[in-house]
Amino acid sequence: KKFEDVFDKIRDELIERFTSENMPQDAIEWYKRSLEYNVPGGKLNRGMSVVDSVEILKGRSLSDDEYFKAALLGWCIELLQAFFLVSDDMMDQSITRRSQPCWFRLENVGNIAINDSFMLEMAIYQLLKKHFRQESYYVDLLELFQETTYQTEMGQLVDLITAPEDHVDLGKFSLKKHNFIVRYKTSYYSFYLPVALAMHMCHVPASYTHSGKVVSPYKLALDILLPLGEYFQIQDDFLDYSGTPEQIGKVGTDIIDNKCSWCINVALSVATPEQRKVLDENYGQKDSQKEARVKALYEEINLRERYRKYEEDAYQRLG
Amino acid sequence: KKFEDVFDKIRDELIERFTSENMPQDAIEWYKRSLEYNVPGGKLNRGMSVVDSVEILKGRSLSDDEYFKAALLGWCIELLQAFFLVSDDMMDQSITRRSQPCWFRLENVGNIAINDSFMLEMAIYQLLKKHFRQESYYVDLLELFQETTYQTEMGQLVDLITAPEDHVDLGKFSLKKHNFIVRYKTSYYSFYLPVALAMHMCHVPASYTHSGKVVSPYKLALDILLPLGEYFQIQDDFLDYSGTPEQIGKVGTDIIDNKCSWCINVALSVATPEQRKVLDENYGQKDSQKEARVKALYEEINLRERYRKYEEDAYQRLG
Ligand SMILES: [Mg+2]
Ligand SMILES: [Mg+2]
Ligand SMILES: [Mg+2]
Ligand SMILES: [Mg+2]
Ligand SMILES: [Mg+2]
Ligand SMILES: [Mg+2]
Repeated sequence: KKFEDVFDKIRDELIERFTSENMPQDAIEWYKRSLEYNVPGGKLNRGMSVVDSVEILKGRSLSDDEYFKAALLGWCIELLQAFFLVSDDMMDQSITRRSQPCWFRLENVGNIAINDSFMLEMAIYQLLKKHFRQESYYVDLLELFQETTYQTEMGQLVDLITAPEDHVDLGKFSLKKHNFIVRYKTSYYSFYLPVALAMHMCHVPASYTHSGKVVSPYKLALDILLPLGEYFQIQDDFLDYSGTPEQIGKVGTDIIDNKCSWCINVALSVATPEQRKVLDENYGQKDSQKEARVKALYEEINLRERYRKYEEDAYQRLG
Repeated sequence: KKFEDVFDKIRDELIERFTSENMPQDAIEWYKRSLEYNVPGGKLNRGMSVVDSVEILKGRSLSDDEYFKAALLGWCIELLQAFFLVSDDMMDQSITRRSQPCWFRLENVGNIAINDSFMLEMAIYQLLKKHFRQESYYVDLLELFQETTYQTEMGQLVDLITAPEDHVDLGKFSLKKHNFIVRYKTSYYSFYLPVALAMHMCHVPASYTHSGKVVSPYKLALDILLPLGEYFQIQDDFLDYSGTPEQIGKVGTDIIDNKCSWCINVALSVATPEQRKVLDENYGQKDSQKEARVKALYEEINLRERYRKYEEDAYQRLG
């Protein structure tokens, strides 16, 4: 609630600028609507985890000003995510997002959503400039957002050309590619970015010496958080296949949607030539019988057991 | 030629990073192709004017290193423009650009072009980080690109909702809106940005005192360059109507395309109710007879003479 209240303030600030520059009223209202439709309404765990991380690093609860600044950085991640989601839905020609129609599907919006997504992205830098310009770590924040944006776009590119919805070619899949896509498209912005922003806000330096050894805390955070991101994505991929609608809040569609999921990549890595043929003929098609055939094959290769083993290993590595 | 050679170096640098991060080969080739297809091939006057401006400010020819850095800033403007053009062509559903098919029209590209446009934009910050991170004005460059990007997107938004190709509503047009669109969508990035980049590279400060008076050189540059941008755009709008194909290298389509051009806005500002009716019924439609009717009306209201007067005044103000 407190975190969500910060959004209203941010939105008003962004709108205020447009008013002060005499932007036509219909354009101001358009932008306001885009911000309200696309930015809040998600789970907000990325954004709120900046606040949590700052509290952990400081080892105490935050003053009002500290809370506001941490929450603002959190909302910058939510803006970045909104930019990615609005555009991803266009690229995937999706229908709904967060149980409402995708923004570009709304009457009169259409392809204008491309520019709207850009303006969600640029709001980040507007806010950083206004609230962090005086801080010694301002340029670090700028570079971190830029770098993370680029990484996510790299992941999106590989995902788009590896697993287009309308052209199945399992020859393009591999566990290595899966790993690249997960890391670049999701882990950097969802797992590393919130923590790294909090570290900058707490003046954690790029490196320091501790009992004669050089410590690089941001590298350390990466080493912990990227495997964590991978673990969560693999769990998400596995649950898309194995979870009940009650567990995952939706019906999994990764097989039908030709997703470069952990499941298919494991299957490909152990498939006999006959099994590979089954996968080639049945994966990524809008046909529930073919989907069922792929699922049967996942059972044949003991995917559940393989996931259990992966999870066990991951606990060892991450724990 | 020398300026164009810098592009090859930039492209190789951008690609090198991807190779070093083990991006899959097909994605690397995709990005290379996007850079080569979308970035060079324009008139390059925005980019080259950074080099010219640095030479003028320094009052001498540039060393190799200075030339490279100025040219790199110039190519960053060309990258920004490529980002705008690739996405604008999608929003306008255009067919060709620079006498080749629009990027998104190419086989297999389609909506992936949205993400490609993002990656053209982010290349700017990649290059600035690599080549200007040590400079005292680095953060000024970052803010200038961010600010200009946002301004251009604001102009694009107003243009898109004021003059959609498929829905004519001349009630939304006005000379004031024309002025806003021109300034935000074109002048900031085409006229102010090259000069401001050159000024930063030459360490021109935000303000200084001269014989007891505070001078703000960037504000001064804006005051000169924004009216210049407006002048050039109004000339462009007028020539779209009055120029022969030999003069302008194409057949003007602003009337048919429902463009919020200077010509229609002048006509609206002086039209009698009868003339307004003619404009409402004939503007912005894919019909050459209706286009001819609008052109006839432009003659009735002496648009040529009005343009001559505007130009005369502009010379006074700008000269
Ligand atoms: Mg999607
Ligand atoms: Mg997608
Ligand atoms: Mg999933
Ligand atoms: Mg266009
Ligand atoms: Mg356009
Ligand atoms: Mg024109």
